Amino acid sequence: MDFATYFQDRLAALKSEGNYRVFADLEKRCGSFPKAERHRPDGTTEEVTIWCSNDYLGMGQHPDVVAAMVDAVRTCGTGAGGTRNISGTNHHHVLLERELADLHGKEGALLFTSGYVSNWAALSTLGAQIPNAVILSDEKNHASMIEGIRHSRADKVLWKHNDWRDLDRKLHAVGDRPKIVAFESVYSMDGDIAPIREIVEVCEAHGALSYIDEVHAVGMYGPRGGGVSEERGLAHRIDVIEGTLGKAFGVVGGYITARAELIDFVRSFASGFIFTTALPPACAAAATASIRHLKTSGAERARQKANVARVRAMLDARGIPHMKNDSHIIPVMIGDPVKCRMISDMLMADWGIYVQPINYPTVPKGTERLRITPGPLHSAEDIAHLIEALSALFSRCAIAHAVA
Amino acid sequence: MDFATYFQDRLAALKSEGNYRVFADLEKRCGSFPKAERHRPDGTTEEVTIWCSNDYLGMGQHPDVVAAMVDAVRTCGTGAGGTRNISGTNHHHVLLERELADLHGKEGALLFTSGYVSNWAALSTLGAQIPNAVILSDEKNHASMIEGIRHSRADKVLWKHNDWRDLDRKLHAVGDRPKIVAFESVYSMDGDIAPIREIVEVCEAHGALSYIDEVHAVGMYGPRGGGVSEERGLAHRIDVIEGTLGKAFGVVGGYITARAELIDFVRSFASGFIFTTALPPACAAAATASIRHLKTSGAERARQKANVARVRAMLDARGIPHMKNDSHIIPVMIGDPVKCRMISDMLMADWGIYVQPINYPTVPKGTERLRITPGPLHSAEDIAHLIEALSALFSRCAIAHAVA
Repeated sequence: MDFATYFQDRLAALKSEGNYRVFADLEKRCGSFPKAERHRPDGTTEEVTIWCSNDYLGMGQHPDVVAAMVDAVRTCGTGAGGTRNISGTNHHHVLLERELADLHGKEGALLFTSGYVSNWAALSTLGAQIPNAVILSDEKNHASMIEGIRHSRADKVLWKHNDWRDLDRKLHAVGDRPKIVAFESVYSMDGDIAPIREIVEVCEAHGALSYIDEVHAVGMYGPRGGGVSEERGLAHRIDVIEGTLGKAFGVVGGYITARAELIDFVRSFASGFIFTTALPPACAAAATASIRHLKTSGAERARQKANVARVRAMLDARGIPHMKNDSHIIPVMIGDPVKCRMISDMLMADWGIYVQPINYPTVPKGTERLRITPGPLHSAEDIAHLIEALSALFSRCAIAHAVA
Repeated sequence: MDFATYFQDRLAALKSEGNYRVFADLEKRCGSFPKAERHRPDGTTEEVTIWCSNDYLGMGQHPDVVAAMVDAVRTCGTGAGGTRNISGTNHHHVLLERELADLHGKEGALLFTSGYVSNWAALSTLGAQIPNAVILSDEKNHASMIEGIRHSRADKVLWKHNDWRDLDRKLHAVGDRPKIVAFESVYSMDGDIAPIREIVEVCEAHGALSYIDEVHAVGMYGPRGGGVSEERGLAHRIDVIEGTLGKAFGVVGGYITARAELIDFVRSFASGFIFTTALPPACAAAATASIRHLKTSGAERARQKANVARVRAMLDARGIPHMKNDSHIIPVMIGDPVKCRMISDMLMADWGIYVQPINYPTVPKGTERLRITPGPLHSAEDIAHLIEALSALFSRCAIAHAVA
């Protein structure tokens, strides 16, 4: 086979569909986020304001978090040096896992190298190791869950997005088998929030193990940043809470929290946990500092909420269509990959605004969008400038102003 | 189903087999590695010498690497804040990928969150996306490759470990289909090195795409640390070279290097690359510093080699059985999980020596071992103390002194 030609053809097809990805080459500067330097392909640079970061609260530049990471690099070095079992467990990992268990009110926590790996490894292990298990998965679950379930080779049943009645029927149809229900609290691309209470009640009624992905919620929802499950007082009724340290907590890594024996089980059987080098101790130290800060400080959450509301109100005032939801994620719908990239390029070139076009496969074809994530560090001027730019481009590009 | 009881039963079985893992809780201290503080379960601490680290060259505490990471945390913050496509690409990632491509003499490189993920994502993508592909996998390949191949659902053919004649026959039997051959240079647990030249020639003869895992070789073999493929002048004849930044380079992360279109293909289609937060820019900066240092400095490699030879010679002099190989990995065979843990525990408690017992599933049952990795920073006294301890324990425990 001529591999090179095959790869080139597939890439050419992506390009012709408008789905070829070009990464913006950024240089974040600690203290001035959401501003960053962007390296243009020609080697020059320009200042941009980032409007699509998942460092939702700006914790990646918080002085306590930066100091914790710098201190730990200086005292422990740059890497863990091994898998968790073979010399790679550092005291910072142990402290972080305790902090995470406490955050969600669980007996135990297990740290993974990423949120993706935590979903993939936990679900593939539970699905593969529990005999005759069936996994009931919300149809809009993230790729990491889909791949984990696929990898487990357990039977999989999709249920309609956020539809607990459909879940109830499907759990009933499964009958007397071990059942695992996987869903998210905040869905990343539409920003909608699951009816967690109803889902949990359905799980309890059927004796199903409940597994919630809170990666777009931890740090931001709940009085201590424990996610939507904390906000709604439901954390103790959910079996597994999965989260990330790479979004609102501003560092890197993923985790699950649960009862002690489930944590120990995944720790002992998950290939994606066992056979991989542990996160640098300094990342664990930084994440711990970030979690601790957000457990007691509500200022970042309050300011984020205010800025989200402000952006929404100003979009409405200008008639710019965006998806309604109860979260911090504002999807401005474009509906075409080429147009989506074009608007994004113009925002960058003419306005110094960076909002990545979100195209297939991240969202279904035909639902291409700009996904805007206002944070506590965007100023009133930043917001006014964004709205100004979007208004100008929306009239110029003659995009349908119907609300998606 | 009573999940808790099921988990507890499985864990009890692990314990009764001697395969339950207890992580040593370490506190590395920058500048004194391979010494570290160990936290005992009772809260007290003791000093230990680490003899099982994959921070093979001590680069995790190298002043240039530490400084690069500290500087980048201070200038860029603690996290990337997004996937590579959505605001997560930082200039440090771009520079690191260029450095990696240069290290292996390839057109391009792609960074992943770990070596595990690089193998899993690259092989699962190639296997799934290339129509009718078959993957021929060395039977001793690492879990990350096994899981990646499994996940691809491509047809898989195992060939006998390091047996290029068997590979040749099996490639022939596959016939006219796209063929991918996956193998490692240095096998982690036995420390043996593949006959790379012969394997490459067989791949070329059959038009197969060759994929080599060099995670236990990069930084340590070849005049610039480009791995065994560089040492043997074969890098340009291998299609994909995969490596890690978490072992000899002392940080975290994994990568592949290859021709531009293959890199772009995996970049564009690999779920495990696309849908995950990028590594912290500071980790990329540290890794770049480490690679650059080891490209020009041979001192660490020379001293590692000398210490490995010294440990081997002293083991031989005391009649302590260890597996012969051409690498830096010294497996001292025990052959029983309970004994293996016992010796490890005694080394820690009585001698302040930390060598993790390597039991199933990391190695096959019956081949349990202590895996010793001498590095450039072990002193003559450290080595003498290790040999003293092993001699004392081997006579006390009456382990068969036959060479494994």
